Amino acid sequence: MIKLIALVKKKRSMTVGEFRDYWINVHAPLARKIPGMRGYRINVAGAPGDMTPAPYDGTAEIWFDDRAAMEAGLSSPENDVAGGDVVNFTDDLVFLVCEDEAVIIDQCAAEIAA
Amino acid sequence: MIKLIALVKKKRSMTVGEFRDYWINVHAPLARKIPGMRGYRINVAGAPGDMTPAPYDGTAEIWFDDRAAMEAGLSSPENDVAGGDVVNFTDDLVFLVCEDEAVIIDQCAAEIAA
Repeated sequence: MIKLIALVKKKRSMTVGEFRDYWINVHAPLARKIPGMRGYRINVAGAPGDMTPAPYDGTAEIWFDDRAAMEAGLSSPENDVAGGDVVNFTDDLVFLVCEDEAVIIDQCAAEIAA
Repeated sequence: MIKLIALVKKKRSMTVGEFRDYWINVHAPLARKIPGMRGYRINVAGAPGDMTPAPYDGTAEIWFDDRAAMEAGLSSPENDVAGGDVVNFTDDLVFLVCEDEAVIIDQCAAEIAA
Protein backbone atom coordinates (compact mmCIF):
# COMPACT_ATOMS: atom_id res chain seq x y z
CA MET A 1 0.00 0.00 0.00
CA ILE A 2 1.12 3.51 -0.76
CA LYS A 3 -0.62 6.59 0.57
CA LEU A 4 -0.60 9.99 -1.01
CA ILE A 5 -1.38 12.77 1.46
CA ALA A 6 -2.31 16.10 -0.10
CA LEU A 7 -2.09 19.20 2.09
CA VAL A 8 -4.56 21.70 0.74
CA LYS A 9 -4.93 25.44 1.26
CA LYS A 10 -8.35 26.77 0.33
CA LYS A 11 -8.87 29.51 -2.21
CA ARG A 12 -8.74 32.77 -0.31
CA SER A 13 -12.00 33.96 -1.86
CA MET A 14 -13.96 30.95 -0.49
CA THR A 15 -15.43 30.44 2.96
CA VAL A 16 -14.57 27.17 4.71
CA GLY A 17 -18.10 25.96 3.89
CA GLU A 18 -17.78 26.77 0.19
CA PHE A 19 -14.36 25.10 0.08
CA ARG A 20 -15.72 21.98 1.77
CA ASP A 21 -18.77 21.75 -0.48
CA TYR A 22 -16.79 22.22 -3.68
CA TRP A 23 -14.18 19.66 -2.63
CA ILE A 24 -16.65 16.96 -1.61
CA ASN A 25 -19.40 17.54 -4.17
CA VAL A 26 -17.55 18.72 -7.27
CA HIS A 27 -13.87 17.76 -7.04
CA ALA A 28 -14.15 14.36 -5.33
CA PRO A 29 -16.46 12.86 -8.00
CA LEU A 30 -13.82 13.79 -10.61
CA ALA A 31 -10.87 12.55 -8.54
CA ARG A 32 -12.47 9.19 -7.69
CA LYS A 33 -12.38 8.26 -11.38
CA ILE A 34 -8.57 8.06 -11.29
CA PRO A 35 -7.75 4.41 -12.11
CA GLY A 36 -6.31 2.21 -9.38
CA MET A 37 -7.44 4.37 -6.47
CA ARG A 38 -8.19 2.12 -3.47
CA GLY A 39 -9.18 4.79 -1.00
CA TYR A 40 -9.89 8.49 -0.86
CA ARG A 41 -10.61 10.28 2.38
CA ILE A 42 -11.03 14.02 2.84
CA ASN A 43 -10.36 15.77 6.16
CA VAL A 44 -11.52 19.38 6.45
CA ALA A 45 -9.89 21.36 9.26
CA GLY A 46 -11.88 23.21 11.90
CA ALA A 47 -10.82 25.35 14.84
CA PRO A 48 -7.37 24.26 16.07
CA GLY A 49 -8.11 24.82 19.78
CA ASP A 50 -4.94 25.55 21.74
CA MET A 51 -2.65 23.98 19.15
CA THR A 52 -0.34 25.57 16.60
CA PRO A 53 -2.48 25.56 13.46
CA ALA A 54 -1.14 24.12 10.22
CA PRO A 55 -0.92 26.47 7.24
CA TYR A 56 -3.43 24.23 5.40
CA ASP A 57 -7.21 23.91 5.50
CA GLY A 58 -7.49 20.21 4.93
CA THR A 59 -5.89 17.00 3.77
CA ALA A 60 -6.78 14.29 1.29
CA GLU A 61 -5.58 10.74 1.87
CA ILE A 62 -5.48 8.74 -1.34
CA TRP A 63 -4.14 5.23 -1.53
CA PHE A 64 -3.05 2.81 -4.19
CA ASP A 65 -1.69 -0.75 -4.14
CA ASP A 66 1.90 0.33 -4.80
CA ARG A 67 4.03 3.07 -6.35
CA ALA A 68 3.59 1.71 -9.90
CA ALA A 69 -0.22 1.80 -9.55
CA MET A 70 0.00 5.33 -8.15
CA GLU A 71 2.17 6.56 -10.99
CA ALA A 72 -0.13 4.95 -13.58
CA GLY A 73 -3.17 6.59 -11.94
CA LEU A 74 -1.47 9.98 -11.84
CA SER A 75 -0.52 9.69 -15.52
CA SER A 76 -4.12 9.00 -16.60
CA PRO A 77 -6.46 11.34 -18.49
CA GLU A 78 -8.80 11.16 -15.47
CA ASN A 79 -6.04 12.65 -13.33
CA ASP A 80 -5.58 15.45 -15.86
CA VAL A 81 -9.26 16.34 -15.48
CA ALA A 82 -9.13 16.23 -11.66
CA GLY A 83 -5.82 18.10 -11.64
CA GLY A 84 -7.28 20.83 -13.84
CA ASP A 85 -10.10 21.34 -11.33
CA VAL A 86 -7.75 21.94 -8.39
CA VAL A 87 -7.33 25.67 -9.11
CA ASN A 88 -11.09 26.10 -8.66
CA PHE A 89 -10.95 25.58 -4.88
CA THR A 90 -7.30 25.68 -3.72
CA ASP A 91 -4.50 28.25 -3.53
CA ASP A 92 -1.83 25.66 -2.69
CA LEU A 93 -1.47 21.89 -2.81
CA VAL A 94 1.58 19.86 -1.78
CA PHE A 95 2.06 16.12 -1.31
CA LEU A 96 3.58 13.56 1.01
CA VAL A 97 4.03 10.10 -0.46
CA CYS A 98 4.05 7.56 2.36
CA GLU A 99 4.96 3.92 1.90
CA ASP A 100 5.77 3.52 5.55
CA GLU A 101 2.75 3.48 7.85
CA ALA A 102 2.74 2.43 11.49
CA VAL A 103 -0.59 1.78 13.18
CA ILE A 104 -0.01 2.27 16.89
CA ILE A 105 -3.64 2.11 18.00
CA ASP A 106 -6.79 1.53 15.96
CA GLN A 107 -9.87 1.18 18.09
CA CYS A 108 -13.36 2.33 17.39
CA ALA A 109 -15.76 3.12 20.20
CA ALA A 110 -17.82 -0.03 19.46
CA GLU A 111 -14.77 -2.27 19.91
CA ILE A 112 -13.96 -0.66 23.23
CA ALA A 113 -17.54 -1.03 24.48
CA ALA A 114 -17.63 -4.74 23.50
CA MET B 1 -15.06 11.34 16.00
CA ILE B 2 -12.44 14.03 15.89
CA LYS B 3 -9.09 13.63 14.17
CA LEU B 4 -5.96 15.50 15.01
CA ILE B 5 -3.48 15.55 12.13
CA ALA B 6 0.06 16.56 13.07
CA LEU B 7 2.38 17.68 10.28
CA VAL B 8 5.92 16.93 11.38
CA LYS B 9 9.27 18.17 10.14
CA LYS B 10 12.17 15.97 11.20
CA LYS B 11 15.11 17.27 13.16
CA ARG B 12 17.67 18.45 10.63
CA SER B 13 20.45 16.46 12.30
CA MET B 14 18.60 13.14 11.83
CA THR B 15 18.42 10.92 8.77
CA VAL B 16 14.94 9.84 7.66
CA GLY B 17 15.67 6.40 9.13
CA GLU B 18 16.69 7.80 12.52
CA PHE B 19 13.62 10.06 12.54
CA ARG B 20 11.33 7.13 11.70
CA ASP B 21 12.86 4.84 14.32
CA TYR B 22 12.73 7.43 17.08
CA TRP B 23 9.14 8.34 16.27
CA ILE B 24 7.83 4.77 16.14
CA ASN B 25 9.96 3.16 18.85
CA VAL B 26 10.50 5.95 21.38
CA HIS B 27 7.88 8.66 20.91
CA ALA B 28 4.83 6.55 19.98
CA PRO B 29 4.95 4.42 23.18
CA LEU B 30 4.83 7.68 25.19
CA ALA B 31 2.09 9.26 23.05
CA ARG B 32 -0.17 6.21 23.12
CA LYS B 33 -0.58 6.61 26.88
CA ILE B 34 -2.57 9.82 26.37
CA PRO B 35 -6.04 9.07 27.82
CA GLY B 36 -8.97 8.76 25.43
CA MET B 37 -6.92 8.15 22.30
CA ARG B 38 -8.88 5.87 19.95
CA GLY B 39 -6.39 5.70 17.13
CA TYR B 40 -2.85 6.70 16.33
CA ARG B 41 -1.35 6.22 12.90
CA ILE B 42 2.05 7.43 11.74
CA ASN B 43 2.85 8.11 8.06
CA VAL B 44 6.50 8.65 7.19
CA ALA B 45 7.09 10.37 3.84
CA GLY B 46 9.33 8.92 1.15
CA ALA B 47 10.32 10.20 -2.28
CA PRO B 48 7.56 12.45 -3.68
CA GLY B 49 7.97 11.32 -7.29
CA ASP B 50 6.85 14.01 -9.74
CA MET B 51 4.71 15.81 -7.20
CA THR B 52 5.30 19.06 -5.33
CA PRO B 53 6.70 17.83 -2.02
CA ALA B 54 5.20 19.04 1.25
CA PRO B 55 7.52 20.89 3.63
CA TYR B 56 6.99 18.08 6.20
CA ASP B 57 8.50 14.63 6.64
CA GLY B 58 5.48 12.84 7.99
CA THR B 59 2.07 13.04 9.57
CA ALA B 60 0.44 11.58 12.65
CA GLU B 61 -3.28 10.91 12.67
CA ILE B 62 -4.68 10.76 16.18
CA TRP B 63 -8.34 10.38 16.92
CA PHE B 64 -10.66 10.80 19.88
CA ASP B 65 -14.41 10.39 20.38
CA ASP B 66 -15.08 14.14 20.35
CA ARG B 67 -13.52 17.52 21.03
CA ALA B 68 -14.06 17.26 24.82
CA ALA B 69 -12.21 13.92 24.92
CA MET B 70 -9.41 15.40 22.81
CA GLU B 71 -9.04 18.43 25.06
CA ALA B 72 -9.03 16.24 28.17
CA GLY B 73 -6.35 14.00 26.62
CA LEU B 74 -4.22 16.97 25.63
CA SER B 75 -4.48 18.43 29.15
CA SER B 76 -3.23 15.21 30.77
CA PRO B 77 0.16 14.62 32.43
CA GLU B 78 0.74 11.86 29.80
CA ASN B 79 0.46 14.50 27.08
CA ASP B 80 3.00 16.68 28.91
CA VAL B 81 5.48 13.79 28.82
CA ALA B 82 4.86 13.06 25.12
CA GLY B 83 4.90 16.79 24.30
CA GLY B 84 8.25 17.16 26.05
CA ASP B 85 9.72 14.43 23.87
CA VAL B 86 8.75 16.14 20.59
CA VAL B 87 11.90 18.31 20.47
CA ASN B 88 14.01 15.14 20.42
CA PHE B 89 13.02 14.26 16.83
CA THR B 90 11.23 17.24 15.24
CA ASP B 91 12.10 20.78 14.17
CA ASP B 92 8.48 21.79 13.56
CA LEU B 93 5.05 20.44 14.41
CA VAL B 94 1.68 21.96 13.44
CA PHE B 95 -1.86 20.62 13.69
CA LEU B 96 -5.09 20.32 11.78
CA VAL B 97 -8.14 19.46 13.87
CA CYS B 98 -10.70 17.76 11.66
CA GLU B 99 -14.25 17.01 12.75
CA ASP B 100 -15.44 16.76 9.19
CA GLU B 101 -14.32 13.65 7.35
CA ALA B 102 -15.67 12.43 4.02
CA VAL B 103 -14.87 8.89 2.92
CA ILE B 104 -15.18 8.86 -0.86
CA ILE B 105 -13.73 5.40 -1.46
CA ASP B 106 -12.50 2.81 1.03
CA GLN B 107 -11.59 -0.46 -0.61
CA CYS B 108 -8.84 -2.82 0.26
CA ALA B 109 -7.32 -5.09 -2.35
CA ALA B 110 -8.91 -8.17 -0.74
CA GLU B 111 -12.40 -6.68 -1.10
CA ILE B 112 -11.81 -5.93 -4.76
CA ALA B 113 -10.50 -9.45 -5.44
CA ALA B 114 -13.52 -11.05 -3.69
